[in-house]
Amino acid sequence: MKKDYAVELLETKQFAALKNELNEMNPTDIAVLLGEMYEADDLGDRELTLLYRVLPKELAAEAFTYMDSEQQVVLINAFSDNELRAVIDELYLDDTVDIIEEMPANVVSRILQNTDSETRKQINELLDYPKDSAGSVMTTEFVYLHKEITVQDAFSKIRRVGYVKETIYTCYVTENRKLVGTVSLLDMIVSDPETRIEEIMDTNVISVSTHDDREAAANTLSKYDLAAIPVVDAEARIVGIVTFDDAIDVLEEEASEDMAVMAAISPSDKPYLKTSVYQIYKARIPWLLLLVISATFTSMVLELFEKELAAVTALVVFIPMLMGTGGNSGSQSSVTVIRGLSIDEISFSDIFKVIWKEFRVAFLCAVTIAAVLFLKILYFDRQGLNIALVVSGTLFVVVVVAKFVGCTLPMLAKKIGADPAVMASPFITTIIDVIALLVYFVFAKAVLNI
Amino acid sequence: MKKDYAVELLETKQFAALKNELNEMNPTDIAVLLGEMYEADDLGDRELTLLYRVLPKELAAEAFTYMDSEQQVVLINAFSDNELRAVIDELYLDDTVDIIEEMPANVVSRILQNTDSETRKQINELLDYPKDSAGSVMTTEFVYLHKEITVQDAFSKIRRVGYVKETIYTCYVTENRKLVGTVSLLDMIVSDPETRIEEIMDTNVISVSTHDDREAAANTLSKYDLAAIPVVDAEARIVGIVTFDDAIDVLEEEASEDMAVMAAISPSDKPYLKTSVYQIYKARIPWLLLLVISATFTSMVLELFEKELAAVTALVVFIPMLMGTGGNSGSQSSVTVIRGLSIDEISFSDIFKVIWKEFRVAFLCAVTIAAVLFLKILYFDRQGLNIALVVSGTLFVVVVVAKFVGCTLPMLAKKIGADPAVMASPFITTIIDVIALLVYFVFAKAVLNI
Repeated sequence: MKKDYAVELLETKQFAALKNELNEMNPTDIAVLLGEMYEADDLGDRELTLLYRVLPKELAAEAFTYMDSEQQVVLINAFSDNELRAVIDELYLDDTVDIIEEMPANVVSRILQNTDSETRKQINELLDYPKDSAGSVMTTEFVYLHKEITVQDAFSKIRRVGYVKETIYTCYVTENRKLVGTVSLLDMIVSDPETRIEEIMDTNVISVSTHDDREAAANTLSKYDLAAIPVVDAEARIVGIVTFDDAIDVLEEEASEDMAVMAAISPSDKPYLKTSVYQIYKARIPWLLLLVISATFTSMVLELFEKELAAVTALVVFIPMLMGTGGNSGSQSSVTVIRGLSIDEISFSDIFKVIWKEFRVAFLCAVTIAAVLFLKILYFDRQGLNIALVVSGTLFVVVVVAKFVGCTLPMLAKKIGADPAVMASPFITTIIDVIALLVYFVFAKAVLNI
Repeated sequence: MKKDYAVELLETKQFAALKNELNEMNPTDIAVLLGEMYEADDLGDRELTLLYRVLPKELAAEAFTYMDSEQQVVLINAFSDNELRAVIDELYLDDTVDIIEEMPANVVSRILQNTDSETRKQINELLDYPKDSAGSVMTTEFVYLHKEITVQDAFSKIRRVGYVKETIYTCYVTENRKLVGTVSLLDMIVSDPETRIEEIMDTNVISVSTHDDREAAANTLSKYDLAAIPVVDAEARIVGIVTFDDAIDVLEEEASEDMAVMAAISPSDKPYLKTSVYQIYKARIPWLLLLVISATFTSMVLELFEKELAAVTALVVFIPMLMGTGGNSGSQSSVTVIRGLSIDEISFSDIFKVIWKEFRVAFLCAVTIAAVLFLKILYFDRQGLNIALVVSGTLFVVVVVAKFVGCTLPMLAKKIGADPAVMASPFITTIIDVIALLVYFVFAKAVLNI
């Protein structure tokens, strides 16, 4: 249903029609629609609650999970304890936890008051897992079966727990809570009802531990094309699963984070259009200031050689080009390596392979650019042979150094547990700028004997 | 099984043990292991074929799909027609197509000769879809049901086709080949065998068209948390589905591509460590050359103002800082917008929202940095008031312009169907560099009345 039509139905008080339209919709779209209407002030808190209440219970709860925390707070405050309990019962535990993490304290305590002690315990456990750990993104709603039971019994258990999501298409076989195998729903469907689970289970189980990085969990799921990957605790007992939809979100967030950090922005998982100007400012300004300050080093180098500059002002002309090309050669290498690290294509043990490969690439690039530049300076810029030698010689060194620095720093960062992406552009660029200028003037002094 | 142990078993000719070890392994790991052994020359073509032949048919076929094309070619060449046919029968159509796309022509024709005409027709159809279209990543193996049949009949159909992957957990309900609904395996399991499919099907179908961008398909799948998204042709007939595992690969590849392009590298979907030095060189050098050439503009500006530079050499000192900060302010905006566009958080229609938001952010950033810089120049660099005014004034303008250019260009690129990522660093940086220098010297002339 288009927003305008919904607004029209609302203003003309055709609630029955509105209700039918909404019932036809997908929970995601309902959340988006209500969100847009709310932000455009077509909906007040009262109307939002009213529309929400006309939705069938299950659809309502699902739509709820897709809403912005802003609208969720409005609804929760409007809910009676019974309504709140009804919604929470419909929610998946991990969704409840995601919601709680966004909520103001008073709302959180109200949510917790309205969950039974067992759920509350599980919620608190989930909240306890370190941010960005596999435990923090897993759901505790999965089907586990004992290996002795029959397919028939397995089905009746599945029907009993009746989770309504992909989470049940793989069942996890346990032996005193330890994960010993997996069995897909399909295998059960195609086997005789009397078959015992252990006969059809796959004992070759891929799993991650609760404290593994959530990105590692998502990468593993993707590597083995799993719909869900089991998460086990220190005693190899299965405590949850990470499903493909959460894995996709993790991979998307991590990629966005890397890009942000590479561009010198503190990452945020809030959509751009929903982030306030001040928040964006706060995420960007520290890095810009850092750059202004770090640029002091380049200034120092330039002051150091003010005499030479005054003597041969022609030198100035090439400074932007030297620094620009150096910076880009560096980020070509760093970005390649950073991405390789985050999708597990490269690990620290490859460091020498990488350096050797980058060195050869750097050499080829450096020769090419230096040659082109040399000719350009001689015949296009009509400068003397000495200048041409100094500039293209400098560029050669700068490109080689830049690619070395660019590929090495991210790997070292990874090794010491820092975020490799931080090593992209800004930092590396500053380092390279300084080196470029130093090399440049040392060469200049030597060749032009100033 | 560890590589060394496998090599040892191989060298000591303990094939039985080797076979058992392999049978215990996951197809992905088998492919990785054999690949490593082959590249380390622990395996010749003969041994590779030999080891492959000891694997059970189904496991072998699955492992085959995860191998590098290099080893796939070796095996295909070693296969008898019967073996080849056996493998192809086990493969999913989309996997077969992926393999074919990597193969030399002679191998391709051999593969096609060994597929029945129906399969060959489907393969050719899949190969016809434009690169990066939803059609090119979909699989044509999905279960479709007529809405009149009962759950019971549905199950027997599922058992009959017996696909061994997630592809069957959602079945697609068709009415003379048009897609009219979906029904999840779970819904079928929990309903009475006599229920008719149309009673339990969900008529609210999310689908994409064969020619939609593969990234759009993956984003939609992720937005609605679907395990698979149906792909329909111009007549709304379902022709295939994109499953979550392929969607994940698409999203990962697209993110890697964006990062590469942002860093001025021509993207490649080959893993870094498997890409030859020359290929990497080819992907990077054109952009570096482009930068060297485009830097000509900055040089021109500098030559234009050589007189002023000679007069006040102190001006030179701040050039790197001005250009560096300008470049980064710009890429902060461009990278944010580019990412927003590719994960569908931002669309072209938001352009004015975005510009207005970036303008306010830019103003805040510019004021802050200019102020800090002003004081730094006065009290740290001990320069005169005029210099401080010129430099911080320039920086203010540069930051505002940079953020404007940075957020606008990618959106325009998107509008004209170009890749927004191309608008990141290199291009924008050059533009901003030139503007920065122009503003700088105009200010300088005015204030320092040179």
